[in-house]
Amino acid sequence: MERLPTLEQLIDYLRRLPSVGRKSAERMAYALLKMDTDTLQGFSKAIQDLNEHIHPCPICGNYTEQETCAICADESRNHHTCIVVSSPQAVHAFEELGPEYDGVYHVLGGDLSATAGISIDDLNVHSLITRIENDGIKEIIIATNPTMEGETTALYLAQILKKYPIKISRLAYGLPIGGHIDYADALTLKKALEGRTHI
Amino acid sequence: MERLPTLEQLIDYLRRLPSVGRKSAERMAYALLKMDTDTLQGFSKAIQDLNEHIHPCPICGNYTEQETCAICADESRNHHTCIVVSSPQAVHAFEELGPEYDGVYHVLGGDLSATAGISIDDLNVHSLITRIENDGIKEIIIATNPTMEGETTALYLAQILKKYPIKISRLAYGLPIGGHIDYADALTLKKALEGRTHI
Repeated sequence: MERLPTLEQLIDYLRRLPSVGRKSAERMAYALLKMDTDTLQGFSKAIQDLNEHIHPCPICGNYTEQETCAICADESRNHHTCIVVSSPQAVHAFEELGPEYDGVYHVLGGDLSATAGISIDDLNVHSLITRIENDGIKEIIIATNPTMEGETTALYLAQILKKYPIKISRLAYGLPIGGHIDYADALTLKKALEGRTHI
Repeated sequence: MERLPTLEQLIDYLRRLPSVGRKSAERMAYALLKMDTDTLQGFSKAIQDLNEHIHPCPICGNYTEQETCAICADESRNHHTCIVVSSPQAVHAFEELGPEYDGVYHVLGGDLSATAGISIDDLNVHSLITRIENDGIKEIIIATNPTMEGETTALYLAQILKKYPIKISRLAYGLPIGGHIDYADALTLKKALEGRTHI
């Protein structure tokens, strides 16, 4: 028996979600089939609303539903310090820290990657330079992911930015809190040793 | 920073999918945000199409987009033998076996469950009896899930059906192929022992 075309199509779409394989997509599709019309309508609309309502902030590249994002629009924040991240998810992670950080952000929109064909022109670097030149940014904290691509991006960015009279730093590497030393990989352990601090 | 309302709403819907927690739903929502308009439109429509196109087959309760499902409509199949399952997914699992089984199915639409408040009236039992009385079903193979609820449903069903002059059986319990005896739970092992066959 062939599966129903409508169901098969939905399964194809569900499989495009991260970490969703064939089996999970099937289970999700059948679960959706059991939901009532209102829920399905709402779900369907929520997906459609995404790119009708959400667009990148023209200043920092974070997602927003307004003209500029809530962080760029917030005058009570420190607009001299800027954390540079790869993705809007990372902005959210920092914002979860609460009052720990009250500066602004800049979203690159990805990491440099030779394999994925992402070059510096594909990232929001020009707009970052414009912000440094015109908007009084005095400190840049580079917070790309601790991966090969994130690392390359960070080094490249530091290179480009070093001609500006600003403070540039990047996040510390080391052991994650709550982890076990015996489970840490060699590279993390090496970085934790290199970055040791006096106590 | 509050997350965007449109994104938050989508995350709420994604969390209703099976095995999707807060973190997964967030990752899925951000992945969707990166998809192009056509994909989002298609995805949205695929969800909406579900209950516009798909409904239960009036004969067996399996999902269909036609008047009756492809299995009930197929005259080349053996309509005297009927596997009784809890859900349409189970029909699909049997159909994946290929020519191993050429009979028909009956989908109960769930299992008896005191905790979930599902009684015999909530299951498609009346239509099964109608099929036995009018459509010449001679053999029923009960294939509810090997769980407490599935077991209760199977016993209850066998009780109801025993007044009809038909053959009733249920799937064998035992070790799953490819499994290890030392990983099998006690109940499965007990059933495998009880159901031992001569070789």
